[in-house]
Amino acid sequence: MKIGIIGGGGVGQALGAALLTLGHEVTLGIRTPSSEELAKPRPQGKPLAEWSAATGGKVVTMAEAASDADLIINATAGEASIAALTLAGADNLAGKVLIDLSNPLDFSQGFPPALSKQYSSHTSVGEQIQAAFPEAHVVKAFNTVGVGIIVNPGLITKDHDLFLSGNDAAAKATVTELARGLGWKSFLDLGDIKGSRAQETIVLVWLQVMGATGSSLHNLHVALA
Amino acid sequence: MKIGIIGGGGVGQALGAALLTLGHEVTLGIRTPSSEELAKPRPQGKPLAEWSAATGGKVVTMAEAASDADLIINATAGEASIAALTLAGADNLAGKVLIDLSNPLDFSQGFPPALSKQYSSHTSVGEQIQAAFPEAHVVKAFNTVGVGIIVNPGLITKDHDLFLSGNDAAAKATVTELARGLGWKSFLDLGDIKGSRAQETIVLVWLQVMGATGSSLHNLHVALA
Repeated sequence: MKIGIIGGGGVGQALGAALLTLGHEVTLGIRTPSSEELAKPRPQGKPLAEWSAATGGKVVTMAEAASDADLIINATAGEASIAALTLAGADNLAGKVLIDLSNPLDFSQGFPPALSKQYSSHTSVGEQIQAAFPEAHVVKAFNTVGVGIIVNPGLITKDHDLFLSGNDAAAKATVTELARGLGWKSFLDLGDIKGSRAQETIVLVWLQVMGATGSSLHNLHVALA
Repeated sequence: MKIGIIGGGGVGQALGAALLTLGHEVTLGIRTPSSEELAKPRPQGKPLAEWSAATGGKVVTMAEAASDADLIINATAGEASIAALTLAGADNLAGKVLIDLSNPLDFSQGFPPALSKQYSSHTSVGEQIQAAFPEAHVVKAFNTVGVGIIVNPGLITKDHDLFLSGNDAAAKATVTELARGLGWKSFLDLGDIKGSRAQETIVLVWLQVMGATGSSLHNLHVALA
């Protein structure tokens, strides 16, 4: 599959590398893919020139990454996502599956962070992306775990779930198949894109559990009676 | 143990009944324990006169329930909790374990609800109760599951966790022992009372999972690599 990742931080880099290994064609889109920018370290990641050399993945503009792709992954920070996807271009997103793995975190008062106010009460980034790009098929997924588990879910040997939500059943099926390729086995469909409200709150639980356990390699399982 | 439950709704009734069965002395405190009030149906519960007749538990004022008890359980709605505990009396809470199982839900825009704004950004009900009653040993617990699981955790046969947080280690140990009596086996200590921020967001996940699965009999398990 031709996949365009919007955002060049550590999450996009690791997910892109894993998808390239699985045989997908992956381009990674950033605002300014100049050689100067490619030489800079990225948030929680390495310089993208190094990433390209190591993985064979190309780094292009956000619009180029989106226009060439069959499926697009938003790997930007939640508060920056709509601006980034606007640069990617509504026309380039139309009719395509758009996986949103962002979280809108407000660290202004230290740890633990809160969800950003404009995205946390009766709304969510996932819903606002779907509203801003109504022709895209937004699926909220992969935002509830750290990147170490996103790309290697088998590190956790007990049952654990990939939460996803979105308005389009076919798009959710596409994301489920992509995730199976990464090794995911258990899925919990939270319904339409309003489910991203619950998914975005999970990051607060995730961070608190990381603080309590000292590990980023954890995930939730919903156990039913 | 002498236990005072503040709040006469369905959760307090069911938890009180379960604790009475285990041999604890339980009184249930409401604002006005008149015979007229005891005859009225309660939120998600039955008339308290029926509850008393069925369980042998007494219904008294909030202050009486708190003053007689060794351990106090706040089973009121999150937005009403501080007012109710003020009626229970700061002096009656001082030096005692106070289990807070409340959640501050805002259903003003329908389902799914949000957390109430005054309790959801860089704060929580648990923390505000601890700040309002600094001599109580507040432990946030039991707010992350439905009452059917609170009183009968064995209905879920797979591993699942009781989350708890609070500033006092001995108080958390007391709550853990009380929960073991109800059948709880797995515990996740999220640290000091700030952990109640994460715990109170879990109710949004819980509600969404209930919508997706059609069951209230579910709980989370944190799976570690």
